[in-house]
Amino acid sequence: MAQKPQLSLGVDLGGTSVRVGLYGNTFELLDSRSRVTRVSAGPQVCVDEVATDIDSLLSENGYEAADVLGVGVGSPGPINLRTGVLGTLPNLPGWGDFPLRDAVAKATGLPTILESDANAAAIAEWKLGAGQESGLNSMAMITLGTGVGSGLILAGQVWHGMFGMGGEVGHATVEPGGLLCSCGTRGCLEMYASASGLLRLATAIAASAETTRALQQLMARPEGATPQCIAELAQQKNDPAAKLAFERLGYYLGIGIANLINTLDLPMIVVGGGVASAWALFASALFRAVREYSVIYRLVAPSQLLTMETNRTFIRPALLGPSAGLMGAGLLPRLASSESGDAILNYEVAR
Amino acid sequence: MAQKPQLSLGVDLGGTSVRVGLYGNTFELLDSRSRVTRVSAGPQVCVDEVATDIDSLLSENGYEAADVLGVGVGSPGPINLRTGVLGTLPNLPGWGDFPLRDAVAKATGLPTILESDANAAAIAEWKLGAGQESGLNSMAMITLGTGVGSGLILAGQVWHGMFGMGGEVGHATVEPGGLLCSCGTRGCLEMYASASGLLRLATAIAASAETTRALQQLMARPEGATPQCIAELAQQKNDPAAKLAFERLGYYLGIGIANLINTLDLPMIVVGGGVASAWALFASALFRAVREYSVIYRLVAPSQLLTMETNRTFIRPALLGPSAGLMGAGLLPRLASSESGDAILNYEVAR
Repeated sequence: MAQKPQLSLGVDLGGTSVRVGLYGNTFELLDSRSRVTRVSAGPQVCVDEVATDIDSLLSENGYEAADVLGVGVGSPGPINLRTGVLGTLPNLPGWGDFPLRDAVAKATGLPTILESDANAAAIAEWKLGAGQESGLNSMAMITLGTGVGSGLILAGQVWHGMFGMGGEVGHATVEPGGLLCSCGTRGCLEMYASASGLLRLATAIAASAETTRALQQLMARPEGATPQCIAELAQQKNDPAAKLAFERLGYYLGIGIANLINTLDLPMIVVGGGVASAWALFASALFRAVREYSVIYRLVAPSQLLTMETNRTFIRPALLGPSAGLMGAGLLPRLASSESGDAILNYEVAR
Repeated sequence: MAQKPQLSLGVDLGGTSVRVGLYGNTFELLDSRSRVTRVSAGPQVCVDEVATDIDSLLSENGYEAADVLGVGVGSPGPINLRTGVLGTLPNLPGWGDFPLRDAVAKATGLPTILESDANAAAIAEWKLGAGQESGLNSMAMITLGTGVGSGLILAGQVWHGMFGMGGEVGHATVEPGGLLCSCGTRGCLEMYASASGLLRLATAIAASAETTRALQQLMARPEGATPQCIAELAQQKNDPAAKLAFERLGYYLGIGIANLINTLDLPMIVVGGGVASAWALFASALFRAVREYSVIYRLVAPSQLLTMETNRTFIRPALLGPSAGLMGAGLLPRLASSESGDAILNYEVAR
């Protein structure tokens, strides 16, 4: 007799698109849907569209709701994970105070688990990506996207803090009195180590004596510059000013990571998100700043340990790319399931 | 028939003194010993003296080794808590690489648990002090002494990190490019929010246009100034320059605490150590900086929650005073004991 299917569904909600993935018994991606987020139509319309996508994903693949463990939803934060209610989201204006977890459960009729998108990506990298081989039960993932998100796995559990807001490393201060962030604080990591942070750093360099003609021209283009263009200028043209922008980004990211190491002495920190694809351009500056600002990173003396490399905090780029958030969402119903050997117990499930 | 005694012993090892406490069945302090730390005599002499003190504490109070659950030792860090071996300790020169946990177990014949002094103090405040009423299972304690120590309790466990170095919040960067710390990093919290940090801030103010004659005279005394003198000048004479030194300390401590809240979204942060007795002199500046630098502290919107006060991170002074470290050490054998309902399982016990 064939084993009863134990499928799971992941929903990756973003300010630009909403993706839904159907995962099979061995967590293989069976099928997926993607559509543009109609932000101004409001959250209930989006939830109804997700429910429609889930219906069609199941029926077109010959499954029914009873074959599904549940739905995991990754959403931009801040979210109150106790109540499953959205906070005020910069990229989803007007969606604040919406009870997303209960709404998805009601619209789909499936057990629903809500998580921040950054935590979902961290879960995926932990279980299936950069953390998979090591079998580590603690790590942090920092996601360099439009903003800087982060997720903490501590002793085998996603760390949620009081209200599910734990791990907002993007709003750690790396430059007191620095640039004013949209959160209202000055000098947040997000202002320097995100995609927009890189553009800001490059703009400042373009206007300074350290610029090159090429960077100046790029930043003055009528259509604007992108992190990709700056990375190409640095990599293909070896442009020192474009390279400097990534080095500055690495410096600030290094301060943020050093503080994380000083605070938590974690065995692994994974750097993901779009900007992380330029790892080679900022890694040296990042490691230099981590050594400079983390006493623990320096203190772990080789004499007490086997080798330096394997015993220091392992700082490495993410492996799963942009689908980490969707995969992590799809993993949630499996991890929260009590049948799983390593159940993550700190989730409220809406039914 | 009388209940068999279940005593525990605490050892608080410091650069100045070594204290040993004998705790009874209900954790009442039965008796204690204190002696000067003979640093230059080396760690084995100190361990032998501790064993002598334990022998006399037990025999003079009519007990024997079989009545004791074990010995908890609080030591300055860094310590490798996996191996129980001391790292390089600024206040105990020459004691590095000493296997303290095994040495105490051998000298006393009792099961021995090693912990950093800052973690021991955090455990005491959690179980018996500022955290007792609340029943919280997560909190941080920041100890403002000669340096700045810290201990993290996460989900009912002391957080040790990879090597027992987790929670070195004193070496979090609050001023990149700031003062050079003994750890080799610039701008560590410890350089501003410790007893010596306060003296440094007061010295800088005394040499600036913001000084008063009284502060200038105090800082120029041949015998030097102490944090107590500066606190008296601020409190009893209402001296604006002395008050400014504490406000600057509060500002930097606030940045450190804000980063801790942004990273971990903790329900409670306890501020202890000698400098914390001047709480009233730096609390306003501390809370102002926390609000300025922690998006989570500000974000927790009152609309989503019952009241602002009880749902924000509760930042408060410690309750147990200078004996917190000894009490926490004495608690270790109880918490590690499997008979305890809330066993802290992440300790290696030397026998």
